[in-house]
Amino acid sequence: MNDQEAFAIAVEEAVIGYKEGGVPIGAALVSRDGKLLGRGHNMRVQKGSAIHHGETAALENSGRLPASAYKGATMFTTLSPCDMCTGACLLYGISRVVIGENKTYLGGEEYLKKRGVEVVVMGNKECQELMEKFIKEKPEVWNEDIGEEKRVYSKEIKQ
Amino acid sequence: MNDQEAFAIAVEEAVIGYKEGGVPIGAALVSRDGKLLGRGHNMRVQKGSAIHHGETAALENSGRLPASAYKGATMFTTLSPCDMCTGACLLYGISRVVIGENKTYLGGEEYLKKRGVEVVVMGNKECQELMEKFIKEKPEVWNEDIGEEKRVYSKEIKQ
Repeated sequence: MNDQEAFAIAVEEAVIGYKEGGVPIGAALVSRDGKLLGRGHNMRVQKGSAIHHGETAALENSGRLPASAYKGATMFTTLSPCDMCTGACLLYGISRVVIGENKTYLGGEEYLKKRGVEVVVMGNKECQELMEKFIKEKPEVWNEDIGEEKRVYSKEIKQ
Repeated sequence: MNDQEAFAIAVEEAVIGYKEGGVPIGAALVSRDGKLLGRGHNMRVQKGSAIHHGETAALENSGRLPASAYKGATMFTTLSPCDMCTGACLLYGISRVVIGENKTYLGGEEYLKKRGVEVVVMGNKECQELMEKFIKEKPEVWNEDIGEEKRVYSKEIKQ
């Protein structure tokens, strides 16, 4: 599949997550030759999980793979990856991270670049609007998901 | 519980993992007032999981918690945390990471310190010997777990 198709899967996963009442962040992991390895979305609410974020869920759903499978692979994600998901991409040597948006949350993009990962930010409005809607509806769930005590979202989102 | 008791739980988890035929890395997450929040071990082999490492399993088994629960908390782990587990500790604002050993694998200790996390390395022989035994027995599983293609363990372990 091409980048557009892969990104559409990540968005589809985010929408599924939203419809399930969860944190609407989705991801798709695609090999260098365009094969979908795994897809997934944040499962904090659905599974009571602290570690199934969008990207880690895609990795988990990809199953056990040798290091060679991740070489040249791209992680498509609807939101800028948090420290954990940044680290997960680094651990497996994923080559490129394509991000829907980083306006509602800015994760480890600079660290990824510093470690040699290609980072592409799409500035996708659908991803941003979905996150803004969710954060407005369930700020306490979002706080929990990013390990934040209190965050003034109205200000940050407007930046 | 005190540090010694908490660390003993991490080691106990690693030994359980080994006996299950898995990657023998265990962890225990303890709150600032000495309460065990969660414990766990690497589940790559047992669950076919790419994301249940020692530390992330302890986080997962701690369930959904507000950010305040992690404040001042310590992650006890038998092995130097990989990039993913380093990032997971950073995401949740864990204050201290106590590491059994870093001779068989050196993870994100410097990055943790740079981000303000206290890092303590115990130089524990039991942890090191358990990992050396495992790596010798199942080098391909270990390679997979740390996203490495080929690694000359004999040299690295002797360092």
